[in-house]
Amino acid sequence: MSGVSWWPVAGVRLGTVKAGIKYPDRRDLVLMELAPGTRVAGVFTRNRFRAAPVEIAERHLNATDPLFFLIHTGYANAGTGNAGNRAAEMSCELVSEEAECRSDQVLPFSTGVIGEPLPLEPFRIGIPRARGALSQHGWGEAAEGIMTTDTHPKLASRRSEIDGHSVTVTGMAKGAGMLKPDMGTMLAYIATDAAVAPGLLDQWLRELTNVSFNAITVDGDTSTNDACVLMATGQSELPQITDADSAAACALYAELTRVFEDLARALVRDAEGATKFVEVRVDEADNVADARAVADSIAHSPLVKTALFASDPNWGRILAAVGRAPVSELDVDRVRIWLDDVLLVQNGGVAPDYREADGAAVMAREDIVIHVALGMGPMSGRVWTCDFSYDYVRINAEYRS
Amino acid sequence: MSGVSWWPVAGVRLGTVKAGIKYPDRRDLVLMELAPGTRVAGVFTRNRFRAAPVEIAERHLNATDPLFFLIHTGYANAGTGNAGNRAAEMSCELVSEEAECRSDQVLPFSTGVIGEPLPLEPFRIGIPRARGALSQHGWGEAAEGIMTTDTHPKLASRRSEIDGHSVTVTGMAKGAGMLKPDMGTMLAYIATDAAVAPGLLDQWLRELTNVSFNAITVDGDTSTNDACVLMATGQSELPQITDADSAAACALYAELTRVFEDLARALVRDAEGATKFVEVRVDEADNVADARAVADSIAHSPLVKTALFASDPNWGRILAAVGRAPVSELDVDRVRIWLDDVLLVQNGGVAPDYREADGAAVMAREDIVIHVALGMGPMSGRVWTCDFSYDYVRINAEYRS
Repeated sequence: MSGVSWWPVAGVRLGTVKAGIKYPDRRDLVLMELAPGTRVAGVFTRNRFRAAPVEIAERHLNATDPLFFLIHTGYANAGTGNAGNRAAEMSCELVSEEAECRSDQVLPFSTGVIGEPLPLEPFRIGIPRARGALSQHGWGEAAEGIMTTDTHPKLASRRSEIDGHSVTVTGMAKGAGMLKPDMGTMLAYIATDAAVAPGLLDQWLRELTNVSFNAITVDGDTSTNDACVLMATGQSELPQITDADSAAACALYAELTRVFEDLARALVRDAEGATKFVEVRVDEADNVADARAVADSIAHSPLVKTALFASDPNWGRILAAVGRAPVSELDVDRVRIWLDDVLLVQNGGVAPDYREADGAAVMAREDIVIHVALGMGPMSGRVWTCDFSYDYVRINAEYRS
Repeated sequence: MSGVSWWPVAGVRLGTVKAGIKYPDRRDLVLMELAPGTRVAGVFTRNRFRAAPVEIAERHLNATDPLFFLIHTGYANAGTGNAGNRAAEMSCELVSEEAECRSDQVLPFSTGVIGEPLPLEPFRIGIPRARGALSQHGWGEAAEGIMTTDTHPKLASRRSEIDGHSVTVTGMAKGAGMLKPDMGTMLAYIATDAAVAPGLLDQWLRELTNVSFNAITVDGDTSTNDACVLMATGQSELPQITDADSAAACALYAELTRVFEDLARALVRDAEGATKFVEVRVDEADNVADARAVADSIAHSPLVKTALFASDPNWGRILAAVGRAPVSELDVDRVRIWLDDVLLVQNGGVAPDYREADGAAVMAREDIVIHVALGMGPMSGRVWTCDFSYDYVRINAEYRS
């Protein structure tokens, strides 16, 4: 993903500085400025222990249209009690004083160590400098500025003609699930210069996160700080999209889907210790929830994930993971399981034509599809995951030592 | 657990031989003989891919009172289709021919590699020899004969006076959850010489497995072959127990609980790669399901388990695991979290008096209690688990290579 090209989004400017929040000489503070009239939709972690900035960002977003996002690394500002709330509010006030806006027009985002108090001094110095650095061309530095344990910045961008007008979608993201809870958190910011009616933007964000950031799993953990924000600045010439079934809506939705999915895949590929990228696809389910339940059961299984790390076509582990998924009425005799296009399982057992060498050839690949057909109905689901390696244990066991 | 003393149970004889089922020179075939009149209750895996012997054992148990259990390692006889069913039925017929009983009076149990056909020849030779070896004193060899990746046999035994009569409870078990699905399976056999009414025996088995074998987790996987059987031979002088509230019932129930819990703890302590034994206790829940949901969320978290391996008092990971448990109405400000007796978290954040050195001192221990109080109600739940080490990845990644 590094070196990926991206287009600026009219109406979005970004400024990134080294504020010395926790570590010296590291880009750690990002200010995003949105043109007035920008519509913003946000989804936030479902973990009940939510960081102070998550509470405040959601409250501010519900109150008014945001003009600024203040994003920093170093501290999660989670598990910090009332002092954490006050620190997050103060950081918004520092932006409002600097930029002469209301403090509830600022959304705060934090990622870093849980439970340590957030120092405000770096913000007093850093915010004016970040504001001075604001530029439409700041996406690359900003994508670096929100990184914690990521090994490279993650950007995705699309530009296309819709109804004769150029429309851009550009996004950045960091982390993948709660890979490393002290320094983990998934943050994603996706902007388009199209104009989208607020209700529709909100609906789209929920649909798009469901098939992208909510359809990836590394270890099944959910951070206290996860957030994903979709912005529509309306600076393109394209008239506002209000009808979800219009041709323009479909075209824009397709572009957004590509950007969300590209970012989600990039997060999985950069997961700690990951050596493989695995798509788990479940077809022929009665409903999407069943399909996802089976896919999640496979993708969360440490035994499947260690087999993937070992390139071992251990179909018994996949079969057992299917069998314990919480799906009622599952008929194991109708289930078929493939590795890429190699049929492993049918009629409740190994496929008669299956040869271990064929499975091993697929498992040796870096990109693998585990495909399950349940034989129950017309619905499908899909998750992306990675394998489970020594490095996962090493990184997560040794992180604080 | 090795070298543990155990008492024979009148009415139960065990014979163990090296039948060469998969490996030479290994105790791999166990025959258990039950005196006529023995009551048997069984619980079997909830995985929908169930091994052939599980299907047949449950069917036979529902049809009549068993006289023999035939247990072997080497092959799971799972994912083997119709041929697997016939092989399991044939193995029961071999016992019935040898012992002149009906074949549905034999319950078959298998553990070993999934998906490979079960060879019957070792049974033709091994069953008569195992029958010749039957002895009340065969528990030690039998506990060894059901081992697969276990590093030592697991036995637990209690003898006490109830209403002036000596009563014995002795059990053996192997495996722990689906540690290693090719060679994994939890099997447990617990016998008492007391007489217990059939309905009560069945109810007790379900209650006791719920707080023992269903309250341990290593990796959240469930095998295709898991089974737990409780036998009451009625050979003791104690009159049959029919009233669950009688003093004799309470005394026997307490003894059974100890044996079930001892075996469950032994399974966790012998889990692959485990270096710590961890009790996760959740109090002050509205109901038991909520308490268990929170305990499971902590016990299943790879991030908590790698922190345990590293002896890192990483309370942020525990807090996040509590926060994502599927419990409605959780008020994070009322949650308190302790490591042993060290208070980590209260009022939504780190406890004011908490010092890292205190948490580190607890984490350095081999036996650790993670204690959570939800502040919601009077109910509790508890699970036992272990840490997640390099060796877990190594053993599960390299097993077939």
